[in-house]
This record gives sequence, C-alpha cells and structure tokens, in this order.
Amino acid sequence: MIELALIGIGTGSPGHLTREGIAAMADADLILIPAKGDDKADLADLRRALCQQVLASPPPLAVFDMPARDAADGYRQGVEAWHDAIAERWEQVIRAHGAIRPALLVWGDPSLYDSTLRIAERVARRLPLNLRVIPGITAIQALCAAHAIPLNAVAAPVLITTGRRIRDHGWPGTVDRLVVMLDGECSFQSLDSEGLHIWWGAFLGMPNQILIRGPLPEVAGHILETRARARAQHGWIMDIYLLERCRSR
Amino acid sequence: MIELALIGIGTGSPGHLTREGIAAMADADLILIPAKGDDKADLADLRRALCQQVLASPPPLAVFDMPARDAADGYRQGVEAWHDAIAERWEQVIRAHGAIRPALLVWGDPSLYDSTLRIAERVARRLPLNLRVIPGITAIQALCAAHAIPLNAVAAPVLITTGRRIRDHGWPGTVDRLVVMLDGECSFQSLDSEGLHIWWGAFLGMPNQILIRGPLPEVAGHILETRARARAQHGWIMDIYLLERCRSR
Ligand SMILES: C[S@@+](CC[C@H](N)C(=O)[O-])C[C@H]1O[C@@H](n2cnc3c(N)ncnc32)[C@H](O)[C@@H]1O
Ligand SMILES: C[S@@+](CC[C@H](N)C(=O)[O-])C[C@H]1O[C@@H](n2cnc3c(N)ncnc32)[C@H](O)[C@@H]1O
Repeated sequence: MIELALIGIGTGSPGHLTREGIAAMADADLILIPAKGDDKADLADLRRALCQQVLASPPPLAVFDMPARDAADGYRQGVEAWHDAIAERWEQVIRAHGAIRPALLVWGDPSLYDSTLRIAERVARRLPLNLRVIPGITAIQALCAAHAIPLNAVAAPVLITTGRRIRDHGWPGTVDRLVVMLDGECSFQSLDSEGLHIWWGAFLGMPNQILIRGPLPEVAGHILETRARARAQHGWIMDIYLLERCRSR
Repeated sequence: MIELALIGIGTGSPGHLTREGIAAMADADLILIPAKGDDKADLADLRRALCQQVLASPPPLAVFDMPARDAADGYRQGVEAWHDAIAERWEQVIRAHGAIRPALLVWGDPSLYDSTLRIAERVARRLPLNLRVIPGITAIQALCAAHAIPLNAVAAPVLITTGRRIRDHGWPGTVDRLVVMLDGECSFQSLDSEGLHIWWGAFLGMPNQILIRGPLPEVAGHILETRARARAQHGWIMDIYLLERCRSR
C-alpha cells in the first residue's frame, strides 16, 4: 500500500507550515514537484529551499513536467482528460522511484480551488493508495490576518467565489460578504461599487505583500494601478479580496 | 506600545499549530486565558499542556474569569456591552502583569466566527496597541482534510453559514454547496433532504474525531444518534458539515 500525503503549505510564508505538515514532509520518501516548462527550475528551487529551511535531512525531490492541456476540447472534457494525463504522470514518477510514502506540497489548503485532490483520486484508481490530506492556511485566512479583520459579520454568512462568477452573475443574492479568488481581471469593476467596501491583498504572506482597503469607489483605481504595477514588476501576481455590501440598517 | 498577538491554534490538534504561531507563542511575555466558571481549570490545563508541548520555556499564563453576559438586553446590545466588559477585563490583566507582548490563543482561525478580533479592537481604544493576527487552520479545512474532499466543486462558489440561518431561511439561493457551523441542533433536519449529500465531522483534529458521509436521507439518522451519544459521553460536542445539492445535470 502506498501512502500519498497532500500537504497544505500555506500561501507563501514558511511560517504558515504546520507541525503536522512538517512532520509529513520529513516522513515522506519522495516529494513530487509537478512543474511546467519555464517554471520548472524556479518551482523546484522554491520547494527545495522550503524543505531545507524546515527539515534536517529533506527527502529527495522528483521534479517532473506536467502534461500539456488540450484546450481544443470543450472546457470540462479538456479538464477531465488533462487530470487523467496528470494522474498517469504521477503514477509513473511514483513507480519509477519505488516511493511508498510520496508527498505533494499544495499551495494554501488542498481543499480550496485546487485540483490536486481530484488528481489523487484518479491515481488511487491506478495504484493501491492511501490518501492523507494535511490542512493548510488558505489565502482567505492570510487575507483576514494581514488586514486584522473578521471574515464574517457576527453570525452572518460569507460566500467564497471567483472573479468569473461575479462578472457573469453580479452580486449573488442572500449574502453581504464575498471573498473573491481566481480573479485575473479585478472583476469588482463589473459591480456597482456604491456602498461596497473592499479589503484587497496580493502576495499574501510573502515579503512583497500588498494590502489596500477602503470604500470601493474610493480605492478601486488605486488597486487597479497597484496591481498592474506589481504584476509588471514581478511578472505574475496572486490576489484575493473580501467585499462587503453595506445595507442601510 | 503594546504588541498584542492573536494566535490561531487550529481546531484541536497540536499538529495544526503553525511555525509562525509557535514563534509568536514563544515570543509572548504573557498568554491570556479567558475562562468561565467551571471550564476554568480545564481550559487552563489544556493551554498549558499545549504550550509545554511546543515551547522549551513557555511564558506565564494569566487565567482570568470572563464577565457574565447580560442576556436581559436585546441580543445585539447585549453582545456590544458584553464585549466592552471583556475588553476592560483584558486591559486590567495586561496592565496588572505589565505585559508588553501579550498573546491570546484563538481556536481555529481568528477571522472565522470568533469574537476575539472585535474585543481586541475595543482594547485598542483603551491601550496603545499594535494588533498582530496569526492565521490558523479552521474547522472547515479540518473537515475537508479529514474526509479528503475538495471544499468547492470546480470553479464553483461555497457558502459558509450557520445552523440558525438554514433553519430560518432554508437553502440559500445561488449555491450548491454550504458549510454549516455553529449548529447546536443538526439543522439539516429543517431542509428537504432529497438530493442532498453530507460530509459531517465532530471533534475534528482530536483523538475522538468522528466522521460520517453519505446521501443525507440515508445518513441523517445515523448522524443524529452518533452526535447525541458522543455529546452525552463527552459532555460537549463541536461539529461542522458540508452539504451539497446535486442538481440533475
Ligand atoms: C488556484 S487557487 C488556490 C488557493 C489555495 N489552495 C488556498 O488555499 O488559498 C489560487 C487563488 O488563491 C488566491 N491566492 C493564493 N495565494 C495567494 C497569496 N499569497 N496572495 C493572494 N492571493 C492568493 C488567489 O485568489 C489565487 O487566484
Ligand atoms: C465559534 S466557532 C469558531 C470557529 C473557529 N474560529 C474556526 O476557525 O474553525 C465554533 C464552530 O466551529 C466549528 N468547529 C470548531 N472546531 C471544531 C472541531 N474541532 N470539530 C468540529 N467542528 C468544529 C463548529 O461548527 C463550532 O460550532
């Protein structure tokens, strides 16, 4: 039986690693690093640095290319076939190394907007596999901690959603607070900003963390500029925000 | 200037503690343990055990009684006045110990259904205070990790809500997945269970963790019984669940 550990490593700060996560890293006999093209060296270096920072004798890392995604298919079908191809690749690497306690380091928490769990399920159909998931700090927690704010109003609900959803469907009914993730285009621009408050964060947990907060009509422009500049400077960006709709009470 | 750290400690497992959280505990010159009545000794013992487990020389703990809540007022007003009274108590304890780097250990993550941040803001009006929040593993992450499931369907939204909300308002529009917290009464009973799937967990991260999953019509009775028995046995219970509505696709 192979024990595969999916380890949530938090969202950029080595300080986000949990005791359980570190123990699972130490316990692994192989750490899988799926990479693609140019990122390959970078990603491997980052993971290697993380392992060396927290482990006395890190297990070997297996850096391997991710299969290319066939975008010609329909979206959903493309994803399914792609996940199958990735699962096959994982299987090959695990077999090739004869690993019995392989581990994958997952950004943030493995449960949140991440495909690793879905791929691992597919691997479990190909190999005798026990799956163990170790929770990690999500970008949502990192956002709230950095701003020192509660996620929810007292006893009130919060919706976790994506940039695309708010572009396509507007402000969803029944909630006054939204967390928006996976948003490449500052989709808050598609909403009527009147009465909205935003807490925005980029590169959370990292040395280059950026925070902006305020009434959306006042700070939207500042966020757009800051995001564009930071993105140009670093070549990439990850950002997330909490929006609150202030109803007249 | 006083540096107050609110440290998310995860939901029961010492393995949930993060490197950053442990460093902040080690760095504190006082750990505040608000307690009430009978819990007092228990809670202090648990916190002391946690500190001793992870720190070479734990800082002193200040265990103090929480002011009683005046439930005679209206709900909201009662909470406001109660939080003021708690803030005053914190202030007294910090001053009495001359602490300059006090810390509070917060269950799960300080941003999620927890009043510590709101109380800390009130303390900041009474003392020159720098607030630092350290994110923690939430019960949501612990639930998904224990069941080894994703929180969201691919690119789809998830609502975090309370037992009371679903009792009072039913299944909220626009989402197919709900996380229900703060539910003392298995409020899923108030929903039409047809087509619903549940992943339920109690005492997550603890040695007595319990997990049940399945189509709600089939497992609802089992959850009710299991919960009642566990609650009777331990004298208390903490549980959380994810519900999915399966639309015909
Ligand atoms: C593919 S999802 C993965 C989320 C991750 N599993 C988690 O638990 O946070 C990536 C999205 O998470 C958010 N995100 C992740 N890390 C972030 C960071 N350090 N700063 C800001 N946003 C981040 C962004 O919204 C980004 O589009
Ligand atoms: C006052 S809220 C605090 C939540 C906490 N701040 C967090 O981040 O998870 C308490 C609720 O969290 C959930 N909860 C917290 N710890 C739990 C555990 N170990 N097992 C199951 N549910 C838990 C339950 O729904 C409970 O009613």
